[in-house]
Amino acid sequence: MIRAEIPTPALLLDLDAFDANVTAMTGVVSAHGKALRPHAKTHKCPEIARRLVRAGAVGACTAKLGEAEVFAAHDVRGLLVTTAVVGEAKAARAATLARLAPDTIVVADDVGQVAVLDRAAKHAGVRLRVAVDLYFGRTGVAPGAPALAVAQAIAAAPHLDFAGLQAYDATASHTFGAEARRARTTGTMGEAVATRALLEAHGIPCPMVSAGSTGSYGVDAAIDGLTELQPGSFIFMDTDYLQIGGAAGAAYDDFRPSLSVVTTVVSVHGDEAIVDGGFKAFATDRPYPPVPVDRPDLSYAWAGDEHGRIDMRRATRRLAVGDRLEFRAPHCDPTVNLYDEIHALRGDDVEAVWAIAARGKSQ
Amino acid sequence: MIRAEIPTPALLLDLDAFDANVTAMTGVVSAHGKALRPHAKTHKCPEIARRLVRAGAVGACTAKLGEAEVFAAHDVRGLLVTTAVVGEAKAARAATLARLAPDTIVVADDVGQVAVLDRAAKHAGVRLRVAVDLYFGRTGVAPGAPALAVAQAIAAAPHLDFAGLQAYDATASHTFGAEARRARTTGTMGEAVATRALLEAHGIPCPMVSAGSTGSYGVDAAIDGLTELQPGSFIFMDTDYLQIGGAAGAAYDDFRPSLSVVTTVVSVHGDEAIVDGGFKAFATDRPYPPVPVDRPDLSYAWAGDEHGRIDMRRATRRLAVGDRLEFRAPHCDPTVNLYDEIHALRGDDVEAVWAIAARGKSQ
Repeated sequence: MIRAEIPTPALLLDLDAFDANVTAMTGVVSAHGKALRPHAKTHKCPEIARRLVRAGAVGACTAKLGEAEVFAAHDVRGLLVTTAVVGEAKAARAATLARLAPDTIVVADDVGQVAVLDRAAKHAGVRLRVAVDLYFGRTGVAPGAPALAVAQAIAAAPHLDFAGLQAYDATASHTFGAEARRARTTGTMGEAVATRALLEAHGIPCPMVSAGSTGSYGVDAAIDGLTELQPGSFIFMDTDYLQIGGAAGAAYDDFRPSLSVVTTVVSVHGDEAIVDGGFKAFATDRPYPPVPVDRPDLSYAWAGDEHGRIDMRRATRRLAVGDRLEFRAPHCDPTVNLYDEIHALRGDDVEAVWAIAARGKSQ
Repeated sequence: MIRAEIPTPALLLDLDAFDANVTAMTGVVSAHGKALRPHAKTHKCPEIARRLVRAGAVGACTAKLGEAEVFAAHDVRGLLVTTAVVGEAKAARAATLARLAPDTIVVADDVGQVAVLDRAAKHAGVRLRVAVDLYFGRTGVAPGAPALAVAQAIAAAPHLDFAGLQAYDATASHTFGAEARRARTTGTMGEAVATRALLEAHGIPCPMVSAGSTGSYGVDAAIDGLTELQPGSFIFMDTDYLQIGGAAGAAYDDFRPSLSVVTTVVSVHGDEAIVDGGFKAFATDRPYPPVPVDRPDLSYAWAGDEHGRIDMRRATRRLAVGDRLEFRAPHCDPTVNLYDEIHALRGDDVEAVWAIAARGKSQ
């Protein structure tokens, strides 16, 4: 199959850009002697996880237990579930997963849920690895003494092994400008590293501190005490991450956009063309629409669930019914989550079609 | 399974409300002697399509060919694909579908694409039923003479049968207030009916004029010359449709909200609780967030791909880790499109779990 034959709307991956992004990230992280556990909530694709492992990653993060179950079933190991596993039913599933993939780590931020996890591990006859999720504005327990209390509960639980700290700072990743990001992540990661020291001073070895993001990885990689980075979006990039700003007013260009969505023009009226991609083809959580690839003379406006409206008033080449048009997605993760497969392109050749096997597995 | 055991985030359907909505719509439409071909882009669920047919529907509309293929494979007949089928590859698929389900209707708004469809039908050795899509602001060809020209091309094509007119007015469906909606849909549907008369005056019988929506059905049902209605959202409702306004300042309450999303609290900090549903659990295309069901003391704010932030400052009952919270979705169709299954509840009992088999089949 070639690019022009892919049924639309469809998700495309430029493999040259993807490979370059993987090389760039692994180079920086390994140069600082840290591990890389890329976040698979971005791609939800076992083949991509396997490629990252072949490039040196120690495994994959997942946002939810349901994703981890899918990756484990596809022989991906080194899984870290970054949202707390809450409740008896999910704890039982986590214990079952630990039997299949014993190096899986789940996180907790609540002493009551630690007890739930311990009972589930006991019932399943497994040991379960549990890390403490640190709070930097969304989920987790506050660094310092509150985190120590949860770590002590894990360390004391007969069927749990304390795995370390999960220290993702969602605010740092999207703080605008390189210097502001450096200041933010240096501050919050300092708290994470201090918490690690506090735990070890209390006799709790802390083998892992997992942190970092596509926006802050360059700073995080150099912070002593963090053991691994968990960025996700760097493999794809999106309009959102391209706007976070680089050093001193420059653009953020550490990684190349590799992801696009291809559509077809299905109707034309005067200076408007309607393409076959709308709210079901692009995630809409950012305050800007999809951007046409290599067509600055065209712009996209939302036109409902199934359609987009292309303004051709400044078009240097007009679109006709049947023409194809590609876009950069405003936000990669939830856009990928709309599709069952991704078309991996080398130039215009479809080298492979990969299943987004963990799509929708948010449970 | 009972409500409290459903893994979260998950999509729930209140069957009592759903059944009431189906009864209300079929009652109005049949009282006016019209057919009902509900739009399946809303639910993408073969079991729901079959239930609507058992309640009297003549089939199902789909937005895209890919959805129609799924419904046909699940033995749903009377399919109308409401977005133009464009290009050789999709025309070939439409012809293949017509062999399996000969009463399937596709639409066109372009004479060039009519020729493409005719060649595909010839190649497949089938007759293909094609309707003209009328333009009321998005896709389609303008009513009147332009539509006549496309209809004549279909009628003259050796392997196509002219099926009628598709006259959906996306603007009418969401015009605020019953009187404004009446004015809008009366005007545009008048153009559709006049186009039907024009075609018949030119010797082209026009057996179908398919139109209407959840917002405008009450007016459309009474318009002579429309033959069938194609509303979708009435089965579920959402915050969006609940805000379109009824008669003279009253709320729009023709249908009951039957759809919700259930989440679990995974982290609590002070007056904030974090639930496990974010951009991947709710469509975000409307300018308002999910609304907690029966908890006016709580409010939801987006907190990323996987999470939502609940403000408990006015809470009459505080949430704890592990508590469950249900929400009305801002917009039903693209929210349903995020899930692989829907849990059909009778009270708190899960009566069935239905596959959303056409989820993501936007191609």
